[in-house]
Amino acid sequence: MQKVSAGIDIGGTNTAVGIVDDNANILAETSFPTSSHPVLEEYVKTLADTINSLIKMVGDDLELRGIGIGAPNGNYYKGTIEFAPNLPWKDEVHLADEIKKYFSCKVIVTNDAKAATIGEMVYGGAKGMKNFVMITLGTGLGSGIVANGQLIYGADGFAGEYGHSIAIENGRECGCGRRGCLETYCSATGIKRTVYELLASNRCESKMRDIPYEKLTSKDIYDFAKQGDKIALKAFDFTAEILGKKLADLATILSPEAVFLFGGLALAKDLIVEPTKQYMEQNLLPVYRGKIKVLPSALLGTNIAVLGAAALVH
Amino acid sequence: MQKVSAGIDIGGTNTAVGIVDDNANILAETSFPTSSHPVLEEYVKTLADTINSLIKMVGDDLELRGIGIGAPNGNYYKGTIEFAPNLPWKDEVHLADEIKKYFSCKVIVTNDAKAATIGEMVYGGAKGMKNFVMITLGTGLGSGIVANGQLIYGADGFAGEYGHSIAIENGRECGCGRRGCLETYCSATGIKRTVYELLASNRCESKMRDIPYEKLTSKDIYDFAKQGDKIALKAFDFTAEILGKKLADLATILSPEAVFLFGGLALAKDLIVEPTKQYMEQNLLPVYRGKIKVLPSALLGTNIAVLGAAALVH
Repeated sequence: MQKVSAGIDIGGTNTAVGIVDDNANILAETSFPTSSHPVLEEYVKTLADTINSLIKMVGDDLELRGIGIGAPNGNYYKGTIEFAPNLPWKDEVHLADEIKKYFSCKVIVTNDAKAATIGEMVYGGAKGMKNFVMITLGTGLGSGIVANGQLIYGADGFAGEYGHSIAIENGRECGCGRRGCLETYCSATGIKRTVYELLASNRCESKMRDIPYEKLTSKDIYDFAKQGDKIALKAFDFTAEILGKKLADLATILSPEAVFLFGGLALAKDLIVEPTKQYMEQNLLPVYRGKIKVLPSALLGTNIAVLGAAALVH
Repeated sequence: MQKVSAGIDIGGTNTAVGIVDDNANILAETSFPTSSHPVLEEYVKTLADTINSLIKMVGDDLELRGIGIGAPNGNYYKGTIEFAPNLPWKDEVHLADEIKKYFSCKVIVTNDAKAATIGEMVYGGAKGMKNFVMITLGTGLGSGIVANGQLIYGADGFAGEYGHSIAIENGRECGCGRRGCLETYCSATGIKRTVYELLASNRCESKMRDIPYEKLTSKDIYDFAKQGDKIALKAFDFTAEILGKKLADLATILSPEAVFLFGGLALAKDLIVEPTKQYMEQNLLPVYRGKIKVLPSALLGTNIAVLGAAALVH
C-alpha cells in the first residue's frame, strides 16, 4: 500500500490541496476559494471532500499518513490559526481539531514560511543540514529557522518572524504598526518602494517613470534591470545590501551552514542571491567568514507551499 | 558512591576549578594561574593534578562523572580552543583530547557564555524552560541560546555571538574590527563609553568629570547613579534602551520564554533589568507583547562559570 501525505496551503484567496508521495511528487492537486467559506465548519467539510476525491483520483491502494497545513498565523503547538488578517475566520480557530473529525491520521498546522522550510529540509537543498535558515521573499518576508536539525517554533509557536526585525531604525512604515522592518525593504513590495524612492532621489532616465506605483511588479523591476535600467539595478543592489547585512546579523545568533532564498524575488537569481552573499560576507564577524552559503531554494518554481505542508507529516 | 562533576573556568589570568555535586553545591574549589603554562601539555598536567587533589580533599567515595570546561573560543564540536587572543596557546589546541589522557570520563569544552547558559538551565531560573536566552554583561556581551530544550551551537560551534550583532550602524569601534556591535554599548565597557559620551554632550554636573577614563568602573557608575548622578542614570537608561531594542529584535527569531541577564552590570538590577524589559516591550512585534520575561540570573553572585561548566556534563 503506497503511503501519501496531503499538503494544504491556505491563502487569503485560494486553498491549494495536493497529494504528495515520499519522493516529493505531487500525484494530484487542485484548489478552491478560501473566502467563500466564512464558517470554519463548512470550509473544513469542503476541504475534507477535496482531499478524499483527490485520493480516489490517484488510486485505491493509498494510505494517508497525515495532513500538513501551511496557513498565515498557523500555530504548530495548538493546531490553530490565530488572528490572521486575510482569512475569513477571526480570532482563534481550532483548525486541526475540526479536520480530525474527518480523518484519523495526524494533522499538523504551521505557518507558510515554516512549511516551506520543512519542504527545503525534506525534499530540497537542505537535505542533511542541521543548521540553516530559509528566507521567503514574497509580498512580505517570511523565515524559518532550523537548528540542531529541528525547526525552531519558540515558546509560543511564533518564532521565525525575521521579516519584522528592524533593518533601519525609524525607517519605512510596516503593516505591523512599527517602522523599519526588514520586509519593508526586502520583499516584492519592498523593492517596489525602493524603486520609487530612487526615482525621487535620482535624475537618471528610467522607463519606470511612466508606470504608476500600483501597477509596477517585482517581475517588471527584474525585466527592466535585465534591460540595463539603472534605477532597477540600483534597487536590486540596495535590496541585497540590506538583506546581506541582516543575514550577517542573523549569523551571530545561529551560525547557520546555509541560507536559502525562496519566492518571487529569489527567481532573480543573479541579481539577488550572489549580491546578497557578497554583502553578507562584507559584514560578517570574522569567525563566520567564508563558511555560510547563500543559495536559491532547490525548489524554486515548484509548489513548495503544498510540498512543505505535506512534509510536515514527516 | 557520590557522583560529582568537575567544572573548569579558563580565563586569561586564572583557571578556576570546582568539584560540583548534582545540587549545584561546589564541594571544593581552587584556582591557579593560566598564563604561567605556555605549553598546553604542562598546563593540562597541572589541571589534572588539581582536579585529583580536590577530589581527594572531598572524600574517597566519589565518582567523577565528567569534566566540563568553559573557555574563550571553546569549540563544543571539536573539544578545541581556537585562536583565543587572551590565552597562552595560539592557533587551535586540542584541549579535550589532552585531558582525556588523564581521565576516562567524558570531557566537554564550550565557551564561557554557553557554560553559564547551561548553568542557568540546570541549576538556575531556567529549569524546565525549553526556549530562553542568556545574556552575560561583563567586559563584553556574551550570549547563549536554548531552543527546543537544546543549546544552539550552530554549524561550526560558534552560534550565540549576539554581542557582535549590530546595534547602531557605523557606531562605536569594536575589538572585532567592525563598528556598532551590541557589546560596544551594552557591557561594563560599553556603559563606560556611554558615560564619557554623555559627559561631552551634556553640561550638567557629575562627579565622574573628575575621574579619568581608565579608572572608572561600571560599579562606580552604579554607585553614582544610586546617589542621583544624572549622567550615570542617563547612561543606564541608554544601555537599557539599546539592549531592550536588540532583545525585541532577537524575539522575532527565537520567541523565547525568558531572557536572563548575568554579569557585573546585571547586579544593578533595578537600573538595568526592569528598564531593559520596558524598552523591549515598547519595541516588540505585537504578537510577542506581554509574553517574554526579562529576569536577573538566579545564579547572580555565584561562580556560575564553574557551575555551568560542571553542568555541561549533564
